[in-house]
Amino acid sequence: MSLVRVHNFSVSLDGFGTGEDQQLDAPFGHAGSRLMEWAFETRTFREMGLHGESAGSFGVDEAFASQWGPGIGVEIMGRNKFGPLRGPWEDEEWKGWWGDNPVFHTPVVVLTHHPRPVLEMEGGTIFHFLDADPVSALMQARALAGDLDVRVGGGVSTVRQFLEADLIDHMHIVQVPVVLGRGERLWDGLEGLEQRFEIEATPSPAGVLHLVFTRRAAR
Amino acid sequence: MSLVRVHNFSVSLDGFGTGEDQQLDAPFGHAGSRLMEWAFETRTFREMGLHGESAGSFGVDEAFASQWGPGIGVEIMGRNKFGPLRGPWEDEEWKGWWGDNPVFHTPVVVLTHHPRPVLEMEGGTIFHFLDADPVSALMQARALAGDLDVRVGGGVSTVRQFLEADLIDHMHIVQVPVVLGRGERLWDGLEGLEQRFEIEATPSPAGVLHLVFTRRAAR
Repeated sequence: MSLVRVHNFSVSLDGFGTGEDQQLDAPFGHAGSRLMEWAFETRTFREMGLHGESAGSFGVDEAFASQWGPGIGVEIMGRNKFGPLRGPWEDEEWKGWWGDNPVFHTPVVVLTHHPRPVLEMEGGTIFHFLDADPVSALMQARALAGDLDVRVGGGVSTVRQFLEADLIDHMHIVQVPVVLGRGERLWDGLEGLEQRFEIEATPSPAGVLHLVFTRRAAR
Repeated sequence: MSLVRVHNFSVSLDGFGTGEDQQLDAPFGHAGSRLMEWAFETRTFREMGLHGESAGSFGVDEAFASQWGPGIGVEIMGRNKFGPLRGPWEDEEWKGWWGDNPVFHTPVVVLTHHPRPVLEMEGGTIFHFLDADPVSALMQARALAGDLDVRVGGGVSTVRQFLEADLIDHMHIVQVPVVLGRGERLWDGLEGLEQRFEIEATPSPAGVLHLVFTRRAAR
């Protein structure tokens, strides 16, 4: 069976995976870029073209960041990762934050209570909009992924719901030493989560901590 | 001026410094011993006689744990660290969790809305019960400490209040990879705290992360 994986998911010291007040020019709300700065200098993020033109580094941050793509056949994301709009779509102009050629290059399942037609982008990214709970979303995502793994890409509530449903096999959390104070909490409702996972911690010179959660074999 | 220091203060991944439902036999409530297990094998905690008879280790956990005592002339603690009782004292039988010869061996200021007479214990620990805000408690604690430093010993709300008042110079936080789910949160109300501190992170083989907060020189 293919794995369900989370990568490069940042949280603050106080457990927020995003800030408050998401806007078109502020995908992480008042958190700004603080949760993702550790990644800006990595080769993986540079190659996405999102953060400057240099080649990027090959340090421990890159070692983790680069796990994001290989072996992945589909991403599942929540509506709030797809865009800042809420409620019914007024039109279908919004096509994500990532331009005409999004960084995913696989099918992407967007969970929303307001489905819309399949949206095919350049470079292999195809957005499928589903109104589904985690279990059935995962079943449909696996059908799109073939034998490859499924990445749960966020946002916060999507990762939390998949953890609650015990659907995550591997999770890479980046803990960033900032106190956001407000936003969306990743760990709420997950009391005792550590009993289901082996947890390995690796600090980086960027000042963040890479936490790798591996589901224990006994289930 | 002497420093105000916090040492060996554990928090969970979700930011709780203690669990819910503190009891006489459960100082950390439902968290049990999970927040402090990293320290049980250290020489410092072994020498306190709290956790077994072996000599304890000299690893990185001990390196941090042992900073707790030297140079400290007084501890400030909240009522909830002193004991599980709330409200007015029914009598003065309760003398803390630490037996006749407490581990502190200095004056200890206990913050409480219900003062009681000075309580002198064996070994140099003298409890002073004060109804005071952080600034005036610190002033009185400094008078007891002479030239030595002041340790803010907890519990959670006491550390948080001293952070809110910007009275902490040095803080050692031990982040433990558990999700407690409920209890008392350390970071609430401290948005942007990282701007006031340099933060250094060191992982230990025990699986915890030692975070050292050093107040920035510019104030």
